[in-house]
Amino acid sequence: LASGWGLGAQRGLAIGIGDDAAVLRFAGLEGCVLTADMLTDGVDFELERIDPRRVGRKALAVNLSDAAAMAARPLAAIVCLALPRAGALELAKELYEGLIPLAEQFGVAIAGGDTNTWDGPLVVSVTVVGQVTERGPLVRSGARAGDAILVTGSFGGSRRGRQFDFEPRVREALALAERWPLAAGIDVSDGLSLDLARVAKASGCGAEVELAKVPVSEDAGAWAAELADGSTALEHALADGEDFELILAAAPEVAAEIVAAQPLACGITRIGSFVAEAGLWQLDAEGRRSPLAARGFEH
Amino acid sequence: LASGWGLGAQRGLAIGIGDDAAVLRFAGLEGCVLTADMLTDGVDFELERIDPRRVGRKALAVNLSDAAAMAARPLAAIVCLALPRAGALELAKELYEGLIPLAEQFGVAIAGGDTNTWDGPLVVSVTVVGQVTERGPLVRSGARAGDAILVTGSFGGSRRGRQFDFEPRVREALALAERWPLAAGIDVSDGLSLDLARVAKASGCGAEVELAKVPVSEDAGAWAAELADGSTALEHALADGEDFELILAAAPEVAAEIVAAQPLACGITRIGSFVAEAGLWQLDAEGRRSPLAARGFEH
Repeated sequence: LASGWGLGAQRGLAIGIGDDAAVLRFAGLEGCVLTADMLTDGVDFELERIDPRRVGRKALAVNLSDAAAMAARPLAAIVCLALPRAGALELAKELYEGLIPLAEQFGVAIAGGDTNTWDGPLVVSVTVVGQVTERGPLVRSGARAGDAILVTGSFGGSRRGRQFDFEPRVREALALAERWPLAAGIDVSDGLSLDLARVAKASGCGAEVELAKVPVSEDAGAWAAELADGSTALEHALADGEDFELILAAAPEVAAEIVAAQPLACGITRIGSFVAEAGLWQLDAEGRRSPLAARGFEH
Repeated sequence: LASGWGLGAQRGLAIGIGDDAAVLRFAGLEGCVLTADMLTDGVDFELERIDPRRVGRKALAVNLSDAAAMAARPLAAIVCLALPRAGALELAKELYEGLIPLAEQFGVAIAGGDTNTWDGPLVVSVTVVGQVTERGPLVRSGARAGDAILVTGSFGGSRRGRQFDFEPRVREALALAERWPLAAGIDVSDGLSLDLARVAKASGCGAEVELAKVPVSEDAGAWAAELADGSTALEHALADGEDFELILAAAPEVAAEIVAAQPLACGITRIGSFVAEAGLWQLDAEGRRSPLAARGFEH
């Protein structure tokens, strides 16, 4: 947002606003990765209807997912809370009861923060500091026409619960980046088609998805059935968002190796290719090509 | 706060929760300093009565002040906003119009963040990443009985406007730490007496203040006159808080050198000594000693 007001390239930033995380290049802090997310009651969750532990966990998990999208190691987190006055201490305790186990699971230190009470609804803001690996950060803009589109896990129906309880793909990203050269990456927060379109646009190319290859989660089908509005599981996989899976770009021979090796418990699937022609395209089961709408949550 | 729930010493933290900022010790990120502050409408400001530019500026300035208290260089900031829906874009613009010039003034990169709209009041959460100098971080716990108490600038009456428009003492802290060995430091956010008591307690000693030496700001007198409640300018200097000046500890001979050199435009004053006996003490003009209440804003 701030980029609109004169903040373009800034001294000290190797990668600035517009990717999943910023990367610093200050002497002594080269490769320091920064990402932040703020969750607010009524938008990202409804405190009346959800265990605060899941909110606390998610506030950290979304940042770990951003670090994963950069193939970076998350190291420390800063937690800022604006707590409604009534029951503030108990609420803070529950938020941390969700957050701390995830931090421990990923070896992330809680380096402090700021805890406030006020007359407004709950706000949880978490910043994560991490570090790129020797291979450098994985950015959105590195895909080239001809690269394969790879995705981890499966998509759709996250509102059935996975939007809170997902596993950020930190280990998966590091394991892949360690063994294979990856060209680009993003985590799917807003929608598979929308986030794929972002990678394509940032990379100056287009993307073509083979619809039959898209890994559709069981939740996507269950969600479509629950809604009973004529929507299909595939549509939910393409547009629901909050899957927090990774979209990756890799050269076709690299992608073939990765898919053959299947090194991830969550699975990794090739769903198409980046192409020279800008925009998003779909290939149906009969190989017919048509535009694919970039759908998902628009900020 | 989280320290109460099992977060004590953590891997990767050289200095953890409880000082003005955390200091990391991960390989490659040694000396990385992290600090965060969240400002909320109705508590830290009243949006109806204040220019949002001053709010945006302050949200960054309080973090720069924390970095100064560690004698660390601030390098990058992450900005998270929860904006009321009505007029959100204009409000965000104004917040950044206050924040960006301060960032530029101190060479701090805006490394991104998260901008949200919601139905609640304004929340501004800023995290600053910095770096300690070769001399390491200045902590709260380094004062020893016999050390002098030094303070920058003057105190009291910040509510007349300085609570928003103060200059964070980054350059001052770095200039002092460069030339002289300092033993401890804190920035005065909650009150001169209260924050001094924190340094003493963290250092396992007490502190004795010569009341006649306390630099009382013009605002403190004007504020006492405005209130006309019998309070004195000195009382305001000791308890008002939000001065964002520094309290420093230094060996007496070092302090004498610093005071003689007067290297800071804002002035630096010796107001007393750290003493072996725990607690806070005052010496009046006749040299009579009595307990001094640690007063200020208690979170």
